[in-house]
Amino acid sequence: MKLIGVDIGGTRTRVGAFAGEALLARQAFPTQGIEEVVKAIRALIAKVGWEGPEAIGVGAPAPMDMRAGVILGCPNLPHWRGVEVVKELKGEFGCPVYLANDATCAAIGELVFGYRSRDFVYITWSTGVGGGIVSGGRVVWGITGQAGEVGHMVLRPDGPPCRCGKRGCLEAIASGTGIARAARERLGEELSAAEVVTRARDGDEVALEIVDEACSTLGQGIAILWELLEPELIVLGGGLTGSWDYLGPKVLASAQVMARGNPQVVLTKLGDDVGLYGAAALPHHFPKEWTSS
Amino acid sequence: MKLIGVDIGGTRTRVGAFAGEALLARQAFPTQGIEEVVKAIRALIAKVGWEGPEAIGVGAPAPMDMRAGVILGCPNLPHWRGVEVVKELKGEFGCPVYLANDATCAAIGELVFGYRSRDFVYITWSTGVGGGIVSGGRVVWGITGQAGEVGHMVLRPDGPPCRCGKRGCLEAIASGTGIARAARERLGEELSAAEVVTRARDGDEVALEIVDEACSTLGQGIAILWELLEPELIVLGGGLTGSWDYLGPKVLASAQVMARGNPQVVLTKLGDDVGLYGAAALPHHFPKEWTSS
Repeated sequence: MKLIGVDIGGTRTRVGAFAGEALLARQAFPTQGIEEVVKAIRALIAKVGWEGPEAIGVGAPAPMDMRAGVILGCPNLPHWRGVEVVKELKGEFGCPVYLANDATCAAIGELVFGYRSRDFVYITWSTGVGGGIVSGGRVVWGITGQAGEVGHMVLRPDGPPCRCGKRGCLEAIASGTGIARAARERLGEELSAAEVVTRARDGDEVALEIVDEACSTLGQGIAILWELLEPELIVLGGGLTGSWDYLGPKVLASAQVMARGNPQVVLTKLGDDVGLYGAAALPHHFPKEWTSS
Repeated sequence: MKLIGVDIGGTRTRVGAFAGEALLARQAFPTQGIEEVVKAIRALIAKVGWEGPEAIGVGAPAPMDMRAGVILGCPNLPHWRGVEVVKELKGEFGCPVYLANDATCAAIGELVFGYRSRDFVYITWSTGVGGGIVSGGRVVWGITGQAGEVGHMVLRPDGPPCRCGKRGCLEAIASGTGIARAARERLGEELSAAEVVTRARDGDEVALEIVDEACSTLGQGIAILWELLEPELIVLGGGLTGSWDYLGPKVLASAQVMARGNPQVVLTKLGDDVGLYGAAALPHHFPKEWTSS
């Protein structure tokens, strides 16, 4: 089957042409609007010699109406606010188009192209903390496709404010943004999460405290997922996993204390393309009862 | 279809004969061993005039090997330790037999006979805290059928010890046992959870503090389920829901602060029979790939 996957990221957009599970060609470019996506799809189609795709899957890090295929307001994606993704791409390419959350797409990528477990949770540990859940080989969508909000489990009811409006969410403490905010407050400096991690490695006590808190809270979240879902694996991706040699033992130590059994945590082997792969497989995993076409 | 449901409880066992979804006859008696269950099934079969059942489903509040159909060690159920439930009942009645966790059975009861939502979590709020998850009309089993351990989410890493060996589990704080233990420690008296609730209603400040903690922690757990699974409903059952008029507003206030949206919490309409109904429907919901017969 001739499939196009589109992964709209906060900074970069990735587009790929797949014959079934084989990636034939891909493009990546700075995220702008839907016109650039249409151009990239046209270029890929020409490159691989298709008349057109048979289906398109799109992942985006934004609130959306999955049934209507529309991206709602999103501060990270100003060009995409209110864009009728499904309608527009369907009009351009005359094939079924599907839209879903990017972390859910990443979970589908793991399901189809990665570890291929039938029971796992995918967690993005990056600027934010997102996730997608697979149970018995099927995506746990929730009633509107918003399930998997791993980052918005409240783990410290009196903790720091989260951008979602609540306090003490996992994301507010363990995400790159959360780590940077803690550094601003406790070190009085504007540092990236990666810089805070470097300082912790170098023995800065406050930085170490911040990093330890982030890791133990992520470990707590993993333990909760382990107890609730009894998955085979927890698969992690995202920028902060780049320091897994240092952070991983801290995360795992916490998860092991707070879960029974022995939580199995692995890093995605698909790297930054996990969401792109998953977007290409989205047409086969999208809930049938939600498709209007 | 001629179905027998068996719900083995810590104190009482319930057995019912169902024609499809209609409960034809039931029996309840103090929990002993498998011989009493065999007798009760024989009595029900005679009463409804069957030659034999076409399938039997059994729920039990114990660690188990679902694939083998064996109950493992269980402090609450001394007569059932190591009992090969599936093999023995199959031998007696010559039909397929299925064994699952009682809280998962309760969730199946809700799915088939209760609110019939396709996306919900069932929570037992009683001596312990248990649960079962349904997503897209299917049970979330996990890799060995142990998923849904709502009570063993660690919500207070420095909290009181839990019987599972960890600290600060939801169950350690919010269950009947947890409430009674807090009363023993802080009031220096042996009280049941119901008595602690009565004292809180009557204005005892320490009892009120204990009850408030239990309710806000349960609300936090509900909020986490709401964010992770985006269910349509959270369905509660179990003895402590008998005081829902007083406890419910406390639980909901906490859940609403810690979840986005508006968590929909309802009480089961099936009462104490929710697990019995679910056991009868278990044969249709048991994972096909786990059946040895």
